[in-house]
Amino acid sequence: MKILFFAGSLRTGSLNKKFALEAKRLVDAKSGYETEFLDLKDYPMPVYDQDIQDKGFPEAVIKLGEKIAGIDALVVSTPEYNGSIPSVLKNVIDWLSREKRVSIGDKPLLLISASMGALGGVRGLWQTRVPFEACGVHVFPTMMGLPAAHNAFDEKGELKEEKLKQQLQKLLDHFLKHIAK
Amino acid sequence: MKILFFAGSLRTGSLNKKFALEAKRLVDAKSGYETEFLDLKDYPMPVYDQDIQDKGFPEAVIKLGEKIAGIDALVVSTPEYNGSIPSVLKNVIDWLSREKRVSIGDKPLLLISASMGALGGVRGLWQTRVPFEACGVHVFPTMMGLPAAHNAFDEKGELKEEKLKQQLQKLLDHFLKHIAK
Amino acid sequence: MKILFFAGSLRTGSLNKKFALEAKRLVDAKSGYETEFLDLKDYPMPVYDQDIQDKGFPEAVIKLGEKIAGIDALVVSTPEYNGSIPSVLKNVIDWLSREKRVSIGDKPLLLISASMGALGGVRGLWQTRVPFEACGVHVFPTMMGLPAAHNAFDEKGELKEEKLKQQLQKLLDHFLKHIAK
Amino acid sequence: MKILFFAGSLRTGSLNKKFALEAKRLVDAKSGYETEFLDLKDYPMPVYDQDIQDKGFPEAVIKLGEKIAGIDALVVSTPEYNGSIPSVLKNVIDWLSREKRVSIGDKPLLLISASMGALGGVRGLWQTRVPFEACGVHVFPTMMGLPAAHNAFDEKGELKEEKLKQQLQKLLDHFLKHIAK
Repeated sequence: MKILFFAGSLRTGSLNKKFALEAKRLVDAKSGYETEFLDLKDYPMPVYDQDIQDKGFPEAVIKLGEKIAGIDALVVSTPEYNGSIPSVLKNVIDWLSREKRVSIGDKPLLLISASMGALGGVRGLWQTRVPFEACGVHVFPTMMGLPAAHNAFDEKGELKEEKLKQQLQKLLDHFLKHIAK
Repeated sequence: MKILFFAGSLRTGSLNKKFALEAKRLVDAKSGYETEFLDLKDYPMPVYDQDIQDKGFPEAVIKLGEKIAGIDALVVSTPEYNGSIPSVLKNVIDWLSREKRVSIGDKPLLLISASMGALGGVRGLWQTRVPFEACGVHVFPTMMGLPAAHNAFDEKGELKEEKLKQQLQKLLDHFLKHIAK
Repeated sequence: MKILFFAGSLRTGSLNKKFALEAKRLVDAKSGYETEFLDLKDYPMPVYDQDIQDKGFPEAVIKLGEKIAGIDALVVSTPEYNGSIPSVLKNVIDWLSREKRVSIGDKPLLLISASMGALGGVRGLWQTRVPFEACGVHVFPTMMGLPAAHNAFDEKGELKEEKLKQQLQKLLDHFLKHIAK
Repeated sequence: MKILFFAGSLRTGSLNKKFALEAKRLVDAKSGYETEFLDLKDYPMPVYDQDIQDKGFPEAVIKLGEKIAGIDALVVSTPEYNGSIPSVLKNVIDWLSREKRVSIGDKPLLLISASMGALGGVRGLWQTRVPFEACGVHVFPTMMGLPAAHNAFDEKGELKEEKLKQQLQKLLDHFLKHIAK
């Protein structure tokens, strides 16, 4: 079973890239999964504009769409921007939804979020579900917000607090068990 | 009283640009308002990336922020993309919210939507409220979705159906009366 | 496979009860499913109040909880009240979520909506997802709103328009295929 | 200017009743406001059912509607139940929206939330906005969640932590200044 991990953030050193990588590490420790981490910075796209689409889809849209088409499940760690989905992630969804050769519909998706605040980005996660679900993605009902994320990781990028690591592990186990059905 | 109109769409010939312009025309027919229509295509921005911000805000962000800072109220006509806010509009909000020299907080905003479908983009309007409200914008509770918008305008760009024109007029009157207080 | 159908409405002759029954009829026409329709009017509950809970759960809460615990999937047809979930349905969720002996978590749920308006209650469906998902329910991403529902059914309670019947059939097939996995 | 305070909870000793009362106390300390606290327990309503409405609105609906019709602004402190609006509050909205003799439209509303959890009920507040806004209520964009509310009040019912008291005071000042316009 192939699982793709990425973050809804472009910034070098993004806390959500770290959180996605930690989730990947926990899945790698189990057997039976082929995992891959992808950086959206390697898939540069302009802001969606139908005038651009009419001249041809940006190469990154097709590459990313093919990548997603080939996997069995997605884990996305996304920041909250203004109480909602970050523009980079919404932009990826808007482009992919127009490219009929690939489809993200019917894929299972686990959403998590890292944030410097106390709420862990949970509010934004609920808004982030909507466009994915509108595309037919099965967003796992349980999600996880990591608060105070700027202090959460050690130098290897692993979660320092055992309790939070176990929470993520438990959520991943629940998700993997569900998609195995 | 200065009112700014724009669309949450970049496409040349966008139905939402037409709908925003029709709203402007109806306000222009009243006295006491200074109105302006703005095309987001004239404010090109990359997808929000803190790495770019760290090198300096794009010029368009500052120009748009100053424009909004100088007005009293906003009317935005926005399409629905995947059940939610279009990426171009979310991107504008994300950039503006980081630029502390300008603020969209406390501004009154009327949201309307034009769509080729039967629902008129109403579903997306409810998701579009959230990031604006998270920034402190007073989004007017009543909104309007224009269904079958590709057949709604005549060659001058005016709404052909009198009933729909009156609905928009009534909504604008209600909004203008509210912000006059 | 056992599937339970009910409506988020109490009213005798409710359009959503009719829509739920039509969905049940379409599933009954397939083999391999055991179906049941339930009327929330037979499960009377006061508005949730912890003071009542502290004296003991209403009998209807336990009866409904046990019913749901025993089935494999849910189909709920719900009206939109004030852009959101109707109070009767929210009340059922609030009571059930407090009764730890039963759990609606991990159940697959298909949401549909009948409405006299043009939008078919679709806006409310998106708000209705949230409390179910917060309880761990797997709400199917695709949903269906039936507009002008007061004219939609014949005297047998079947959908008059073939196109709408096919849309519901296709959605049910997609849902059943998904939960069969 | 008359301001009405109540909680979206029925429970005796409810933390949200305490939070609403603390907000009232802070407004009472200012001059120029007539305030009133109301307990929804004194306005008992069955779960909304059109069959009941057809026989006549419950007395509590009319009494509450008249109370709200006579005030200038509302402050509601509401818990989060299952990530969303509590059924008691949704039920009040559903009943009031059907009683055409009274209207909650165009009233300004400040939403706050007390919760025993770490998130302070903020997630639920965003869902609670929707049905109020669908009724035409002007929900103030800024809201406040009080986390760990079971430890937040002293024996007089006042907020123990000065920082939280100041946050509430500042929010109330901002709201009152806005509605004074």
